[in-house]
Amino acid sequence: MTDNIQELYLHTRRRSEAFCEPLYPEDYGLQAAPFTSPPKWHLAHTTWFFETFLLKPFLRDYQSPDPHYEVLFNSYYNGIGAQHPRDQRGLLSRPTVTEVKHYRDLIDTGIARLLEQEPNHAEVSRRIRLGIEHERQHQELFFTDLKYSLAANPLAPAYRDAPAPRHSTAAPVTWHKYNGGLVETGHQGPGFCFDNELPRHKTYLEPFQLANRLVTNAEYQAFIDDGGYRRPEFWLADGWSTVCAEHWRAPYYWREVDGEGWEFTLHGLQRREAQAPVAHVSGYEADAFARWAGARLPTEQEWELAASFEPGASEGIDDGHLHPPPATGDRGMQQLYGHCWQWTQSAYSPYPGFNPSSDAIGEYNGKFMSNQWVLRGGSCVSAADHVRPSYRNFFYPPDRWQFSGIRLAKSLSTG
Amino acid sequence: MTDNIQELYLHTRRRSEAFCEPLYPEDYGLQAAPFTSPPKWHLAHTTWFFETFLLKPFLRDYQSPDPHYEVLFNSYYNGIGAQHPRDQRGLLSRPTVTEVKHYRDLIDTGIARLLEQEPNHAEVSRRIRLGIEHERQHQELFFTDLKYSLAANPLAPAYRDAPAPRHSTAAPVTWHKYNGGLVETGHQGPGFCFDNELPRHKTYLEPFQLANRLVTNAEYQAFIDDGGYRRPEFWLADGWSTVCAEHWRAPYYWREVDGEGWEFTLHGLQRREAQAPVAHVSGYEADAFARWAGARLPTEQEWELAASFEPGASEGIDDGHLHPPPATGDRGMQQLYGHCWQWTQSAYSPYPGFNPSSDAIGEYNGKFMSNQWVLRGGSCVSAADHVRPSYRNFFYPPDRWQFSGIRLAKSLSTG
Amino acid sequence: MTDNIQELYLHTRRRSEAFCEPLYPEDYGLQAAPFTSPPKWHLAHTTWFFETFLLKPFLRDYQSPDPHYEVLFNSYYNGIGAQHPRDQRGLLSRPTVTEVKHYRDLIDTGIARLLEQEPNHAEVSRRIRLGIEHERQHQELFFTDLKYSLAANPLAPAYRDAPAPRHSTAAPVTWHKYNGGLVETGHQGPGFCFDNELPRHKTYLEPFQLANRLVTNAEYQAFIDDGGYRRPEFWLADGWSTVCAEHWRAPYYWREVDGEGWEFTLHGLQRREAQAPVAHVSGYEADAFARWAGARLPTEQEWELAASFEPGASEGIDDGHLHPPPATGDRGMQQLYGHCWQWTQSAYSPYPGFNPSSDAIGEYNGKFMSNQWVLRGGSCVSAADHVRPSYRNFFYPPDRWQFSGIRLAKSLSTG
Amino acid sequence: MTDNIQELYLHTRRRSEAFCEPLYPEDYGLQAAPFTSPPKWHLAHTTWFFETFLLKPFLRDYQSPDPHYEVLFNSYYNGIGAQHPRDQRGLLSRPTVTEVKHYRDLIDTGIARLLEQEPNHAEVSRRIRLGIEHERQHQELFFTDLKYSLAANPLAPAYRDAPAPRHSTAAPVTWHKYNGGLVETGHQGPGFCFDNELPRHKTYLEPFQLANRLVTNAEYQAFIDDGGYRRPEFWLADGWSTVCAEHWRAPYYWREVDGEGWEFTLHGLQRREAQAPVAHVSGYEADAFARWAGARLPTEQEWELAASFEPGASEGIDDGHLHPPPATGDRGMQQLYGHCWQWTQSAYSPYPGFNPSSDAIGEYNGKFMSNQWVLRGGSCVSAADHVRPSYRNFFYPPDRWQFSGIRLAKSLSTG
Repeated sequence: MTDNIQELYLHTRRRSEAFCEPLYPEDYGLQAAPFTSPPKWHLAHTTWFFETFLLKPFLRDYQSPDPHYEVLFNSYYNGIGAQHPRDQRGLLSRPTVTEVKHYRDLIDTGIARLLEQEPNHAEVSRRIRLGIEHERQHQELFFTDLKYSLAANPLAPAYRDAPAPRHSTAAPVTWHKYNGGLVETGHQGPGFCFDNELPRHKTYLEPFQLANRLVTNAEYQAFIDDGGYRRPEFWLADGWSTVCAEHWRAPYYWREVDGEGWEFTLHGLQRREAQAPVAHVSGYEADAFARWAGARLPTEQEWELAASFEPGASEGIDDGHLHPPPATGDRGMQQLYGHCWQWTQSAYSPYPGFNPSSDAIGEYNGKFMSNQWVLRGGSCVSAADHVRPSYRNFFYPPDRWQFSGIRLAKSLSTG
Repeated sequence: MTDNIQELYLHTRRRSEAFCEPLYPEDYGLQAAPFTSPPKWHLAHTTWFFETFLLKPFLRDYQSPDPHYEVLFNSYYNGIGAQHPRDQRGLLSRPTVTEVKHYRDLIDTGIARLLEQEPNHAEVSRRIRLGIEHERQHQELFFTDLKYSLAANPLAPAYRDAPAPRHSTAAPVTWHKYNGGLVETGHQGPGFCFDNELPRHKTYLEPFQLANRLVTNAEYQAFIDDGGYRRPEFWLADGWSTVCAEHWRAPYYWREVDGEGWEFTLHGLQRREAQAPVAHVSGYEADAFARWAGARLPTEQEWELAASFEPGASEGIDDGHLHPPPATGDRGMQQLYGHCWQWTQSAYSPYPGFNPSSDAIGEYNGKFMSNQWVLRGGSCVSAADHVRPSYRNFFYPPDRWQFSGIRLAKSLSTG
Repeated sequence: MTDNIQELYLHTRRRSEAFCEPLYPEDYGLQAAPFTSPPKWHLAHTTWFFETFLLKPFLRDYQSPDPHYEVLFNSYYNGIGAQHPRDQRGLLSRPTVTEVKHYRDLIDTGIARLLEQEPNHAEVSRRIRLGIEHERQHQELFFTDLKYSLAANPLAPAYRDAPAPRHSTAAPVTWHKYNGGLVETGHQGPGFCFDNELPRHKTYLEPFQLANRLVTNAEYQAFIDDGGYRRPEFWLADGWSTVCAEHWRAPYYWREVDGEGWEFTLHGLQRREAQAPVAHVSGYEADAFARWAGARLPTEQEWELAASFEPGASEGIDDGHLHPPPATGDRGMQQLYGHCWQWTQSAYSPYPGFNPSSDAIGEYNGKFMSNQWVLRGGSCVSAADHVRPSYRNFFYPPDRWQFSGIRLAKSLSTG
Repeated sequence: MTDNIQELYLHTRRRSEAFCEPLYPEDYGLQAAPFTSPPKWHLAHTTWFFETFLLKPFLRDYQSPDPHYEVLFNSYYNGIGAQHPRDQRGLLSRPTVTEVKHYRDLIDTGIARLLEQEPNHAEVSRRIRLGIEHERQHQELFFTDLKYSLAANPLAPAYRDAPAPRHSTAAPVTWHKYNGGLVETGHQGPGFCFDNELPRHKTYLEPFQLANRLVTNAEYQAFIDDGGYRRPEFWLADGWSTVCAEHWRAPYYWREVDGEGWEFTLHGLQRREAQAPVAHVSGYEADAFARWAGARLPTEQEWELAASFEPGASEGIDDGHLHPPPATGDRGMQQLYGHCWQWTQSAYSPYPGFNPSSDAIGEYNGKFMSNQWVLRGGSCVSAADHVRPSYRNFFYPPDRWQFSGIRLAKSLSTG
C-alpha cells in the first residue's frame, strides 16, 4: 500500500463505495439495533469527519452543502455539538443515497483542494491520515452492522454469494510458552497508530502460554453439549445474568434448521463448519468457555507480546472472504489476524501517561475507557494494513455482533 | 364511482401505487414507530389480503410466489398463522420495492382470473369488496404513517408541495339541537359496510346539541394559554398521567420556530393556520379541551344521528389537499368528513347482537373492541366514497398520529 | 345497621382497626405492587380523607398533627396538592404503626368535635357519609392488597386460619330470561350512593338471559384443558397480547403442587374447590371464557336490571369467610353479592348528564372514566351494607388481584 | 481485638444486633432499591452463611429450623441452589424480626457446639473467620442500605441523633511523591485476607503522586459551580450518558433547602460541612472531578503502595460517628481509612494466578470481576479491624449509595 496520503485517501474512499455496490437502495437505511448504523450513515459520517476536522478549520472559503449535516452525521463528538439520536439513524430516508454520494464527491474535491493549498501542513496530514484510518474502521463496521441487519430479515438475504470454499482441518491446539518478565507494550516506530496505543510502557508479566489457534465451532459445541449455557459455575455473575435475561443458548448467528447446524453469514445461511473458528461470541461467553476449558483469556499485554514475535497481518477482507476459515497451518501462532477479533480479559483503560489531544478530535478513544474489554488482532472484515500488534479494539463484554472469537491462555507456574 | 367490482378493484389498486409516486426508494421502508407501517409494507399487505382470502382458497391451481410472504405480510390474523413482528416491518429491505410491485402484479392477474372463473360467486364478490375497502383503509394509513416517519427527520421533508392555499375564516360556532329519544343507529341499506356497523339497533338518547364545526387551532391555543396542559382538573386520570409522562405541551405536529407557530404537514413545515381545525390531538386532549370549554365529546350515537340528517361525504383526499382547511360554510353541520376524524366519548364496543364471521376474516374488527375509542367522520386523507354516517373508526385514547380533531357536544336539560 | 352518622362513623373506624389485629408490625408496610397499598397506608389515608375534607375546612381552630401527612397520605387528589409517589408507599416505615394509630385517634376526636359543633350541617353530614363509604372501600382493598402481598412470600402466610369449610355442590347453570326494552338504571331512592351511579336514566335493552350463578373452578378448568390460554381465537387482541407477554396460564392465585390444584387464599394455601366460583380472573380472561362457552359478558345495565328484581346483599365479609364458597341454592339469581365481583363488558363511562362536584372531592370517581371496565355485585370481602344494584366498581381489564369472577350472559333473538 | 475465634464470633454477632437497636419493627423490612437489602435480611443472611457453610456440612445431626430459609436468605450462591429474587427481599414480612432473632440464636448455639465438636479443624476455623468477615461486610452494608432507604422517606428520619460535632478545617492539599518501579502488591503476612487480595505479585509503576487528603465538599462545589455536570468534556462517555439519563446535578445525598446546602445523613438532615470530604459520588463523578482538577484517579496498586507505608486503620465506625469528618492532621497521608472509600481507576480483575476455591464458597469474590471498579480504604461505617492496605472493595462505576469519595493522583514525568 502506498504511503502517499492523496493516493491512500482516494483508495480508501473508493473502497467504501465499492463495498456498497451489491446493495439495493432499500438496504442503505437498515439499522436493526441502536448499536449499529445504516450503510448510508457510514458513508456520510466518514465524509463528515473529513469535512468537520479538515475542511471547516483549514480550507479557505469552505461552505458546507447543508448545515443539518453537522448534526445528522456527528456520531458522538460533544465538542462539535449536538447529535442526531443514535437509535434513529435508520429513519433518515433523506438525504437519499444519491445525495450522500454527492456529499462525498464535494468533500473529496475539498480535500484535493486542501492538499494543494497546504501540501506540507503537518496537522492537516496527521488528520487526513486519522480520517483514513477512521474510514477503515467504518468499513469494518459497515460489514458487521449490515450482517446484523440482514440477519433480522426472515429471508436471510446474502450480501453477496460465497466464494469457493477453503476446505481445511484445524490441527490440535499447541501451546506456545512465554517467559514474561518486565516487558514493553504499546506502539513503537514511525507508522500510524491511534492515541490509545501510546505511550509505550513497561508491564510485568508472569510466565504464560497461549494457544496457537482460535477455538473452533466444534470445540465450542462441546462446551454447549456439556451444559455450558446451563451451568452458572462457568460464568461471571454479570455474564450469567445476561445468559438468563437474553436466553442465550449459542453464538449469535448460529441457527438450527431441521436438526442441522447452520450459521447466518454475509453469504447467507451456510452450513456451520466444525473446524472454523467460533465467531460472534460475547466476552462473557469467551470467558465462560475458557473457564470450562481449564484455561483463561489472555491479557492484552500477553497477546501483544506474543504478536510482536510474529509477522504482521497479511490476511483479512482483501481475500474476498467474509467469514473466517479454519486454521490452515500447523506451525507458529495462527489466526492472529484475518479471522476473529480475540477477547482479552483486560478492561479497556488508559496506558500510564495516556494523554489525548485536548480538542474535539481527542474524543476519539479516551472517553470510552470504561466498562469495555480490549480485543486484539483483526477479523475477516478488517483490512490487513489496518491492524498491528499494538492495535486495541474494544467492545462491551455482552456484545456479539462483531467477528469476535476466542484464543485461550494459561498461566505457567514458575515452581 | 363505479359499482363494477373489477373496475373498483383496479381503480383502488392503481390508486395505492399512484400515491407512492412521489417517494424515493429509501422512503419505502420507513417505520418511525411500531404502530406505523412502512409504505412498502402497506403495498404488500393489501396484496397479501387478496392472496390469502381469495386466491388461496378460491383460485384453482394457485401457487404463491414466495411462502415467506404469508408470514411477512400478515398483520394480525392469528387464524392464518404466525406474523413477522410488527415493530420490525421497517427492517425488511427485501423484498425490494420492485419485487413487491411484481407481487402486486401477480396477484392482480390472479384476481382477474378468479373473476373470470367465478363471475357470480357471492362470497368471492363479498371478499373482493372487503379487500377493496381494506386497501382504502391502508391508503389512509399510508399517509398518516408516512407523515409520522417523515416528521422524525430533522430535514422535515415534504411528501409533495402544498397546493394553492384555501383562505377562509371559520365563523363562530353555532349549536345544533337534537331531541334524541329512542333512535336507531348502525348501518342500513344495501351499500357496503363493515361488520362492526351492524346490527342496526335502538338506543335511547337524551336531548343534546352539537357544534356545527370543528375546534380550530386558535381555540385550542386559547386552551393552552389558559394552562390547559398544566391543570389536572381538566383531564381524565389516565390522560393526566400521559401528559406528565410524555411531556405533552401541544398537538403532536405543532412546532415553535423563532416564536412563530408552525406545523409539520405532508407538505413540509407550514405556518399554522388559526382558523383551520386542530388536528393530531389524542382522545385525552380532546376530552380535556371539551371539559375546559364547558362542553363534552359526543357519543358515537349522537354523532351518527346528526350525520344521518346530512348529505354524505363529498370531500377528502380527492381534492389533492393533505391538510384540513378551515370551515367555509356558515350553515348546517360542517366538516363532518374530509377534515379530521372526530373523537367520541364512546368506548369501542360491540353493538347488541354483533356477530363476526367465524373464520380468520372475522378477526377484522371484533377483537379490537377493548381500550379504544370510536372516532367518526373521516379526514383529509380519507376517500369520500369510503366513509358514511355509520362508519366506526377506533384508536387508543393516547394516539395522536391520525388526523384526529374535536367536535364539541353538550347535554340539553329537559327541565 | 344504624343510620346515626356518629355511630356509623365509629363502627366503621373500629372495624378498620379490628381487621388489622392479626397483623404483625412487619406486615403493615407491605406493598408488593404499585397498584396495591400497605395496610398502614390504608389506615392513614382513610383518616386523611376525614381530616382533609372535613376537619380542615369545617372544624374551628383545627391544627394538623404533621404537615407532611397532607402529601404522604393523599392518594390522587390533585386539587389538594402533591402526592407521595404511589409506588413508594411501602417505603414509609415512619410514621410507625403506633403513630398512625395516634393520628387516627386525633382525627376521631376531631370528627366528634365537629359533629358537636355542626350537628345539622348538610355538607358536613354528606361528607362524613362519603368518608365512611370511602373507608369501607379501603377495608375491601385492605384485604385484596394484603392477599397480593402475602402471596409474594414463599412461606405463603395466612392472614388468619380458615373457618370450618362450607361444603356444597353447585347445581347446573340455569338461565334467567329478561325482556329488556326501555329500562331505567342508576340509583334511585333516599339511600347513599356514589356520584357515578347518577343520574338515573333510560337505556334500551334487547332481550337477554343471565346465568343464575357464577362460573366455577371446574368449568374454568375445562376452558384451560381445551387450550383456552393457547388459542387466540377466544381473546380480544389486547387480551391475547397480555396472555403472551405475562405468560398467563391460569387465574392469578392458582398453584399446582405435586400435580394437585391449590389456591393461595387469605387462609393460606388451600385445596382448590371445584364447585367454588373462579376468582381473580382478569376482564380479558372473563371475556375469553365467555366466548369459549358460547356466551358473552353482561352489560352493566343488564346486570343491574336483573339485580333490581332480587333482594339486596346479605352476604359478604360479615360471615367471617375470606374466600368465595360454592353456590348453595338452586332457585333464583345466586351469588350476586358476597362471592366475586362480576366483570361486565361495559367500559366505565359517565351516565348521560353525569355531573361531579366541582371541588377536589369531585375527583372521587369521574376522572377514572377511561380504559376501565365496570364490575358489579360485591365479593366475599365486601360489606353487605356497602353494595347495592346500582353500585359500579371498575378496574382495568388486565387486573387480577381483586376477587373478580364471571357471570355469563346471552342475547335472545326476538325472532 | 481478640484472636480467639469464639470470642471474635460472639463479638461480631452481638454487634450486628446492637446496630439494630435504634430501629422500629417497621424499619427492618425496608428495601428502597434492588441493590440494597433490608436490615432483617442482613441479620438472616449472615446467619444463613454460618448455617450453610458450617453447620450443614460439619455439625453432626444438624437440622435446619426451616427449609425455606435456604432459598430465602441465599444471596447469590448458585452452587447452593435457587435464590429468592433480590428485588423482593423487602416483601418478606415473615419470618418476623422475632423469628429471625430466634434463627440467629439457634445458629449461634450450633456454632458453639461445632467449636466444641471440632476444636482444631482447620477448614472449620477458616470458614468461621470468613463468616465473621462476611458479617462485618454486611454490618457496613446495613448502614449504607438503611441510609438509602430512610432517605426515600420525606420525613427524613434519623437512624440516631448526631454526636457532638468535630469542628476542624481541612488544610490545603499536599502531594506525596512515589518513585514506583517494580513493586509488589497483594496481601502478605499471617493475618486474614480475602481470596481476591492474592496472590501477592509484581507490578511496574511509573512515578506518581497522591493527594494527602480527600476532596472536600467545598472543592466539589467548585466543580459544580464551574459547570461540572453540564460539560461533557470532563466525563467518560458512559458517565455522561448516566448524567443525562439520571439528571445528576450533585452527590446523591446533597439537598438544597431554601438556598442552603444540606445533606441527608444517618443523623437526619444536616448542614453540609464545607471541609468534610465529599461522599456518595459515583466512580464517574470521581473521574470527572479528577479530570476537571487536572489530575486523575489513582490505580489500586498506587493506592496500596502508598498505604503500605502508613500505619493501619484506627478510625471507622467504632468512634460512633456515622458521617465522615474533615481531615484533621496536616502531616502524612490522611483519611486512608474511616472516612470514605476511595475510587480507583482500576477495573476489578483477578490478580495474576488468582485461584478461587472450587466449591460454592468460591463464589465469594471471583465471579464479580467484571464491570466494577476497585475502591480502597474504608469508610466511617467500616470497622477499623476490617480493613487493611490490600483490601479490595468493588462497585459499579455509577453506584453512589456507599460512602465513596475521591483521592486524587497525578503522574510524574520522569523527564
